[in-house]
Amino acid sequence: MCELLGMECNVPTDIVFSFTGLRQRGGKTGPHADGWGLAFYEGRGTRIFLDPEPACSSPLARFVAEHPIKTLLAIGHIRQRTRGATTLANTHPFVRELWGRNWVFAHNGTLKTVRRRKLGSFRPVGTTDSEHAYCYLLESLRRRFRAYPKRVTDLWQAVADIGAEIAEHGTFNFLLGDGRHLFARCGTRLCHVVRKAPFGPARLADDDVTVDFSAVTTPRDRVAVVATRPLTKDETWVQGSPGDLWVFDGGILRGTFR
Amino acid sequence: MCELLGMECNVPTDIVFSFTGLRQRGGKTGPHADGWGLAFYEGRGTRIFLDPEPACSSPLARFVAEHPIKTLLAIGHIRQRTRGATTLANTHPFVRELWGRNWVFAHNGTLKTVRRRKLGSFRPVGTTDSEHAYCYLLESLRRRFRAYPKRVTDLWQAVADIGAEIAEHGTFNFLLGDGRHLFARCGTRLCHVVRKAPFGPARLADDDVTVDFSAVTTPRDRVAVVATRPLTKDETWVQGSPGDLWVFDGGILRGTFR
Repeated sequence: MCELLGMECNVPTDIVFSFTGLRQRGGKTGPHADGWGLAFYEGRGTRIFLDPEPACSSPLARFVAEHPIKTLLAIGHIRQRTRGATTLANTHPFVRELWGRNWVFAHNGTLKTVRRRKLGSFRPVGTTDSEHAYCYLLESLRRRFRAYPKRVTDLWQAVADIGAEIAEHGTFNFLLGDGRHLFARCGTRLCHVVRKAPFGPARLADDDVTVDFSAVTTPRDRVAVVATRPLTKDETWVQGSPGDLWVFDGGILRGTFR
Repeated sequence: MCELLGMECNVPTDIVFSFTGLRQRGGKTGPHADGWGLAFYEGRGTRIFLDPEPACSSPLARFVAEHPIKTLLAIGHIRQRTRGATTLANTHPFVRELWGRNWVFAHNGTLKTVRRRKLGSFRPVGTTDSEHAYCYLLESLRRRFRAYPKRVTDLWQAVADIGAEIAEHGTFNFLLGDGRHLFARCGTRLCHVVRKAPFGPARLADDDVTVDFSAVTTPRDRVAVVATRPLTKDETWVQGSPGDLWVFDGGILRGTFR
């Protein structure tokens, strides 16, 4: 199993607090020592840090932790290899362009038979089942819509439908970002919390770090955080049910689709 | 004008020496203060560092300079804005997947009327003429070949042909990598050097740094370096002629196409 981390907010927010906890699971408090990745949106652009080294000892992970970057949408992943070698090409998240937007994807689980699904012009660069599934997902979206859908609820349902289709091949927990929404699918295990006023302190489950969010936020801020397992000890995380797709926009859970 | 940097080798080589020189031009010895980017291949994967901040003062550029990464193929770019805002989405190099490979592209020059060229399914994420040209280039390759061509000389000539077509719209110096080759087109200004045995010392033109390549290489090493202007003072750089496309593979100039 890998660990996923997603954040989606209504004001640019520093992901470092959450990443600090996740990073410890990359070889220190968890067994996920086969690489890590973190992608942030900055406007329409995406910045992506990838490393096949364990996150807890990676110099690049330290750089990220020491240089806060504020973002509205971020997706992170810490990998414990099940299929595919530990290489940069196999390190999540993956970024691809569709309809003039960068789409970011990270997967947790194994999709043993997903390669039976025929692909179109999106082709995997690495050798993981995850990237095959991602290429299939994007191709399926492109077949359904000529451009980014005007009615975004159509897009939400499409992502849920295609997610369910791919999940026939195994375990499909994933995070997907399109620069506007965070899509989070629970195949077996995923949870979320929405931080909003009144803000209080939170303590990381994996590290001796506490942040008082009331000191770094305004009353209007809303921050949705999604993770494989709760990242903090003193917040109430909502557990997903298998098959649920959550859609976050503006730090609000817009709906749960199946 | 922006500055381009490309490196293609037969053994994994550290690009830091060349990047150190280029970095100084990002706001210190040159006016290219509108962002920088550097992409490296690691196997089939690519690692990309992008920053809309000037390279000479960017913490990320310092990180790259302090953590040597060995690679067979790298493309860098320092930007002086002519068209499009200084945002991450407009920062070169651009990376896109075609035929299951990551392609990396950086452009120097202005292509005022390139938006007249109709695009297919590769769509720009940012607002630069460069990214429009890049999307057109990839779409044109996809129309010519169903998959990565078995006869690579066909690919070399195709890149030259499409390059000449796009150059009708303005100035088109570019570097393009497909994970195997470095393509380098001289529209107005580009030069290269191939470092090979016997190696000697070289002094950076922009910084008080000397490297004795004989100390860090073996007699079989071959390193091709391409740049807008010579990066070193005591090597003989070959100037390109307008319209030339150089193709490097294994640190060897395989040919010049027009």
